[in-house]
Amino acid sequence: MRRYLEEKKSYVETILKRYLDELKYPEVIAEGMRYSVLNGGKRIRPILLLMVLELYDKDLNLGKSLAAAIEFIHSYSLVHDDLPALDNDDYRRGKLTTHKKYGEAEAILIGDSLLTHAFFIATKSVEGVSSEKLIKIISLIAEYSGIFGMIGGQMVDIESEGREVSYEKLKYIHKNKTGKLIKLSVEIGAILSEATDEEYSSLQSYAENIGLAFQIKDDILDIEGDFERIGKVVGSDLELKKTTYPSIFGLEKSKEILNQTLEDAKRSLRIFPKEKVKIFNELADYIGMREN
Amino acid sequence: MRRYLEEKKSYVETILKRYLDELKYPEVIAEGMRYSVLNGGKRIRPILLLMVLELYDKDLNLGKSLAAAIEFIHSYSLVHDDLPALDNDDYRRGKLTTHKKYGEAEAILIGDSLLTHAFFIATKSVEGVSSEKLIKIISLIAEYSGIFGMIGGQMVDIESEGREVSYEKLKYIHKNKTGKLIKLSVEIGAILSEATDEEYSSLQSYAENIGLAFQIKDDILDIEGDFERIGKVVGSDLELKKTTYPSIFGLEKSKEILNQTLEDAKRSLRIFPKEKVKIFNELADYIGMREN
Repeated sequence: MRRYLEEKKSYVETILKRYLDELKYPEVIAEGMRYSVLNGGKRIRPILLLMVLELYDKDLNLGKSLAAAIEFIHSYSLVHDDLPALDNDDYRRGKLTTHKKYGEAEAILIGDSLLTHAFFIATKSVEGVSSEKLIKIISLIAEYSGIFGMIGGQMVDIESEGREVSYEKLKYIHKNKTGKLIKLSVEIGAILSEATDEEYSSLQSYAENIGLAFQIKDDILDIEGDFERIGKVVGSDLELKKTTYPSIFGLEKSKEILNQTLEDAKRSLRIFPKEKVKIFNELADYIGMREN
Repeated sequence: MRRYLEEKKSYVETILKRYLDELKYPEVIAEGMRYSVLNGGKRIRPILLLMVLELYDKDLNLGKSLAAAIEFIHSYSLVHDDLPALDNDDYRRGKLTTHKKYGEAEAILIGDSLLTHAFFIATKSVEGVSSEKLIKIISLIAEYSGIFGMIGGQMVDIESEGREVSYEKLKYIHKNKTGKLIKLSVEIGAILSEATDEEYSSLQSYAENIGLAFQIKDDILDIEGDFERIGKVVGSDLELKKTTYPSIFGLEKSKEILNQTLEDAKRSLRIFPKEKVKIFNELADYIGMREN
């Protein structure tokens, strides 16, 4: 699994660099976009898109531009999240955050530019993808990353800081803030591959479950993790009085929910031949075991 | 002219409200988007799009969603421009700016949400617009509002504050920061109307010239304007040592350039029957005479 992820990650980064290389002026925006995108991320979202294409034995070229678009959107969301008015983080993955490196006004515009450019990239026609399909996909990108998706989750998360939050609200935050882009990646793969309705729902359910599992694991790592590995102060959620799975259910029960969620993810894919979804099942296990 | 603009403005605002009414949750994002869009703007961009449709005797419904998308993008750019890290403005058109009203983190997300939602609206299919055409239009929206357009101009404008700027750079700023969305509006109208290549270039040239004229007039008003009318401190460009047309050419010469630019705008449309472009010519005159 680790090797598969490394291989795909390097494929994704080659694509990202190609799009970033086209940007020259204004220098600070072009450089800042490059810095923010090439920051050592795991590229889980674009990789998921490619995994779905592979499940259908499709040419990966079909998803190149859209995989890049999703990663641009993910990157912009991190740049804006890190701003002083939001999370006020100075470092991300051991490197200065974009506003610390380029200035705050610049980081706002770099984020805006990444978001806008994601749509620019997404409109570039790809052989084998009809315009109808592309419009549907672009609509989904906008839906899942805006007020109906990621930004919605982000806003409710901010509002909830330092307050006790209901389980319902916690689910809304997880489902939208991190869940929607993961779901988006899988759904775009399914649209490009012309999945049947049944397959589409199965993949969607897989994505929802691994998105949730990813988040529960994050909450657990915040308590049990190792500073060296996760690269942030362990227990920071507790300090911020953040409502998390462990704060609602306790640590042991949270681990049970995590395992159950991963089982649900795997079960969602039962309609596919087992050997075809091996990598999806491995990814689920990997999420459960990851230490950073 | 004034009456025509008022009438079209109210048509545009009905459309904008309809899109805004669909947004409910998170409340602060939905309300903030509404507040930022319905802020008393002149709606010049969407009106230009509609003017082109009228020139071709097209149904205005054809451009409804795209007119709204452009205004959402214009609104997001104002919300982010006003932020403390950028222009740090507390008021816009006599009302509190979005971050003053809702908070800074909120304003960043409200702006992000407006930008994202513009693309969501743009993808909503309109009868009579093919998917191919829509993809072309969405690509143009992203191109003209991102690093290759508005954001590019905005960044260079910020970098240039308090410095002497070459005429070349001033032209780049004007062309991109304000010019590109004006050009975008006209070009979308031309694409929707299936303008010939010659007509397309003529309309494009008209848009470039009135965009530039609008900006030169702004520079002149900053010196000659009346505080009551333009709603900002007269002479603020001078104080900020901003390079403007008057600072390079002097006031009299700037007025000459303004008139010349408006003449160029009108001349661009000579290929159309005169009675069909009456309103375009009137708009050019109106820009020259406007006092706010």
